[in-house]
Order: sequence, then C-alpha cells, then structure tokens
Amino acid sequence: MKNVTLKQIAEALNISITTVSKALKDYPDVSKDTKQKVLALAENLNYIPNSSAVNLRTQQTKIIGVIVPTTVHHFFATVIKGIIKAAKKKNYLVILMQSEEDDMQEKKSVDLLLSKGVDGILISLSNNTRDFNHLEKIKNHDIPLVLFDKISKITKCSKVVINDQKAAYDAVAYLIQKGYKRIAHFRGDLNPQVSIDRFLGYKKALLDNNIEFDPSLVYICNNNDDFNDGYESAKKLIEIHKSNVDAIFAITDMVAIGALKYFNDNNIKIPDDVAIIGFSNWFMSSVITPSLTTVDQPGFEMGKKAFKLLYEEIKHKDKKIVHKTIELETRLIIRNST
Amino acid sequence: MKNVTLKQIAEALNISITTVSKALKDYPDVSKDTKQKVLALAENLNYIPNSSAVNLRTQQTKIIGVIVPTTVHHFFATVIKGIIKAAKKKNYLVILMQSEEDDMQEKKSVDLLLSKGVDGILISLSNNTRDFNHLEKIKNHDIPLVLFDKISKITKCSKVVINDQKAAYDAVAYLIQKGYKRIAHFRGDLNPQVSIDRFLGYKKALLDNNIEFDPSLVYICNNNDDFNDGYESAKKLIEIHKSNVDAIFAITDMVAIGALKYFNDNNIKIPDDVAIIGFSNWFMSSVITPSLTTVDQPGFEMGKKAFKLLYEEIKHKDKKIVHKTIELETRLIIRNST
Repeated sequence: MKNVTLKQIAEALNISITTVSKALKDYPDVSKDTKQKVLALAENLNYIPNSSAVNLRTQQTKIIGVIVPTTVHHFFATVIKGIIKAAKKKNYLVILMQSEEDDMQEKKSVDLLLSKGVDGILISLSNNTRDFNHLEKIKNHDIPLVLFDKISKITKCSKVVINDQKAAYDAVAYLIQKGYKRIAHFRGDLNPQVSIDRFLGYKKALLDNNIEFDPSLVYICNNNDDFNDGYESAKKLIEIHKSNVDAIFAITDMVAIGALKYFNDNNIKIPDDVAIIGFSNWFMSSVITPSLTTVDQPGFEMGKKAFKLLYEEIKHKDKKIVHKTIELETRLIIRNST
Repeated sequence: MKNVTLKQIAEALNISITTVSKALKDYPDVSKDTKQKVLALAENLNYIPNSSAVNLRTQQTKIIGVIVPTTVHHFFATVIKGIIKAAKKKNYLVILMQSEEDDMQEKKSVDLLLSKGVDGILISLSNNTRDFNHLEKIKNHDIPLVLFDKISKITKCSKVVINDQKAAYDAVAYLIQKGYKRIAHFRGDLNPQVSIDRFLGYKKALLDNNIEFDPSLVYICNNNDDFNDGYESAKKLIEIHKSNVDAIFAITDMVAIGALKYFNDNNIKIPDDVAIIGFSNWFMSSVITPSLTTVDQPGFEMGKKAFKLLYEEIKHKDKKIVHKTIELETRLIIRNST
C-alpha cells in the first residue's frame, strides 16, 4: 500500500482536495460533518501527512542534529539518552552523528546536517578539533548551536558544561586531605579543553597545599578513554617511581580502571600502596574491585539541559539571542580505591 | 546571514533562476563558463540546497529511523555505532529513537518516523512488545523494515540475529564439560524472544547431557540488564540452595556481574564455589575481578549488516523483495569466572 494522498481522500468523498486539506487542519470554514468524514477516512486509510511538504510550509523540520565523538561511551550514551528524551517532549527528532575523534568527519557532519535543514545542532567536539570554522558556519546559517561537555571557549554560543578545573581540584584536594603527597596525574590528550582544565585543577590543588608540582609524575594518555593508556601509564609510573608515588588522579574512569587492573595484576595494593581517583562515574567504577572513587558527571542532565537551551533558541529565532552557559554540579563519589 | 537562495545567485549574476538551478545540477544545456560562475558564487556564499525541496523532487529523504530500547547499553551503543558508520558510507543519516522498553513509545516512534517520510526503519524490539501491528503498518506503507537482535519471529521482514539458543547451549555445555552439574539459570523477562531462546538452549544442554532440569534453579530477572536483579537472585540462590549449586548461566553480563558482586561481597569464591557465565561480552566483563567468561555478541557487525540489508531494500524498492535473515556467529570467551 502506497501512502494515501489527499487526492485519494478527496475523490473517495467527492469533495475538493482543498477541503480535505482544510478539514485535516481543522479550518473553521469546513463543516463539522465533513471534517468528521475526512478524519474517519484518513484514520481508516492510515493517512500520514507528507513531511517534506509540511516542512516547506512551516520552514521547520522539527529535527535537530547531534554530533558526539562516539556512541560507545557510557557518558555520551547517557547524554544522548537525555537529549532524545527532552527532544521527544517537544516532538523533536534527533539525527545522531559521530565524529570518531576526527575533526574532518565532524566538519562534514555539520555540512550534511545543514543541507538537511535541521532546526538546530548540538555538538560535543572531537579531541582533534583545533579550528572552529564549522561552528561559525552554523551560526552564519542562522541555525541555533549549543556545545556541551567538550566545547570551544572562543566560540560564541550557548554551552552546557561542568567546571572541570574545580572538579579536578576537589578530587586532588581530597587526596591531599587524606594524607597522600606524591600524587601522579594521568592526563588526557593535550588538545581538548577538558584535559587542560582537569590538569590545571590538579596543579592548583597541589600548589594551594604547598606540595611541589613534579612534571615527571604527569603521564599523557593519547586517548582520554583508553583502558590500555591507563594500564601502560601505571606500568611506567611504577617502573620509574617505584614506591615514591602514593596516589593517581586519572583523567577518566576508563584510564583509572586500566591503572587499577595493572595494580591488581601485579599485587600492588589499592589504596594501601597506591590510591586512585577516576572521573565520570561510569557504572563500571561502582562494581570493579576495589570500587573506584570518582567524580560524578551528570550526563543525563547535561543532555536534557543542552536540548532545552537549543529549543529556546529555535523558538525565539527571530529575536536577539543571549547566549547562556550552564554549569552543572559535579560530586566526588568516595569508594574503596582511596 | 539567512540561507542564500537560488534567486539571490541568479540576481547577482543576472541570469535566470532556472539557469542557476540547472548549473548546480550540472545540466548539459548550461555553458561551462556559466556553471563555473554559479558554482564559485554558491561556494562563496555558502549556498546549501534546501533539503525539503530536494526531498519532494527525489521522493527520498536519505534518512533512516532506528529504534532501540535504550542508548545506555554497551551492546546497543555498539550496534548504533555500526549502523551510523555503514549509513554514512551511503550518505544516509540516522534518526535515533529509544523505546525505553515501553511498547507504546515504540509504536509512537514508528508513527513519527513514518510521518517524517524516512526511507527505511531498523528496530530492536522492546521487552514489552507483544503485538506487532506497528511493524505491519511500516510494511503497509511500503517502507523497508529490518529487525535486529530483539525480533518478532512472526513478522515477515529481513532480520539480523544471533542464534541465541545455540549460543546458550554452547555456554552451558562448556560448564558441563568442565564438571559443573548443578547449574542455575538467571533468565530474562518472560516475553522477549532472546530470553526464551537462551532459556531453551540452557535446558537442552542439560537434557542432552543427562542432567535433570530443576526448575527451582531458574530465576527470572524482570529486566534483562539489571545489576540488582543479578545481585538479588544470587542472594536468593545461596539462601535456598546453599552449597547445592555450582554454576550460573546468566542471561546477560550485567546480571552476571550483579551475581559476581554478591559473591565477592560475601566471600563466596568464584569459580571454586560457584562459576559464572554471562552473555554479551561487555567491556566491563574483561576487567572485573574475576574476569567473566561470556558469549561474545558482535554488535558492531550487527549494526553494519542491518543497515546494509535495509539499504538493499531501499535501493530495490520497486522490485519484489526477498527477505533475508542473517545469523551472526557468536564466540564463547573463556576467562577466570569458570
């Protein structure tokens, strides 16, 4: 069965196509009786309005685009869930794209979304995005844009973030308060803002507590979420610093769990020999042995908030937009690894 | 800057709108010189063709819809990654929706996707989907449909699945071969086909090996992926059967890890006191202590295959379609929990 058209309904009822169209839109100049007949027949025939035609009329697609680095990631999966849920409440659909940490793929995704005429775009940037022309392009096309989690500080648009620097500071300050003094940092890739901010928070917590910053205790993980990076960094850390290190603040839970696995495999006791703090509060961190102290990052909330900001900008597109930055609260979850 | 229109390009070059339109589409009856001018200006002005207008012409949206129970799930996140990656190669975009295991939400999602005029739909059914009228509706609208993982056996359409019964059979047969005799099953919700098939595989492996099937060793987890279900079932199992049970075959890794956590918390040794096998091969199962023996379910491959089947049906929509069912191989991954 092909899609039923207005014409077929009109012919079946022996009325004009215009009347059918008006009846379906509940126009006042169509009689109640006719409306009922049209609606009943449309229902019986599974009539579905042609969306492309609808778009041309309303100039809205009721579709937004979302670009994330990857879907296979507990935090992003949670954000996506929040976005889709909030979008649904406003009858919006979500086209999901992934950059796979590739800036070119991110730029191409933006072009494709613009060509589809989406009403707005949400992006969490790839680790390798170093210029932001594609974000300016979105703005030049008058399409609302909201960045979340991995943002560009210099792009003028609304954003939903956490305070990475403060969250990292609090995590490291907690370690210091518990008596740890030689605290290593398994930091992320050099480029993304979140790695920079978490590193700065780590450093500031040390300095504020009169602990000398030792660059040899900082290990760079090329991928922010790589189990092997954590495992290998832990191995190097122990080879070089042996017992002259007592704690690790890791950029993410995945890196922390890599380190934890290395210590478990080598009979290094957590937290007695080395304490570990992660970042994100992935589900895994609560069931691993020992369970992982970590910073809880509210992904679901972030997704919902990001959509809401975008929706407000779509709704008031003709007005002057005041960009907002929403900073969500994080919490330190204390478990058995510290 | 609003979207540049064909009219603006035409006026700037003092040629007709039709000529601009033809030049952009590389029609032979426009001079090379004109084409170059039009393309250069369109490029400079960031011209993007209006997608709704394009759709009306081609009768294709180049968008497919995907409905999964949830995005926050390692297996589904992996399938989604595979779908988006395969779709991108064919310039298709993916609208992602989630049923949240609610059949009404699934049905509404189908209606919304149909109203948007997507070119095809991929679905993994919710645990609570008991009638399949919405699937028939998709077919009645001549929209290609492919089901994956959680399917309806009676719906005639293409499918990508694993052989759940065989995979479960192999897992339990492996336990028996290792000498375990009192094997409990933490099964899933009664409705979905995957729970039924895994249960049948479990039962058949016992009977084929002359081990009596004991219904009191089967525990029903209301949600197939609930950590607490696994934890609580393990608790009940031990309360009732004490040392008269030596292994568990769990419906999913999440349920298995719930059980594992209960045993770890209560000094019950894995695998000496109780062995555990999970299902899915979530990343978590490789780093938990002890690491979990499990059945590897190829999510990424499933996503890619599902899109490819759908794409073939979209491409040959005017021809008679022969529905295919692709069965992907699973593998038993042996680790330390058995």
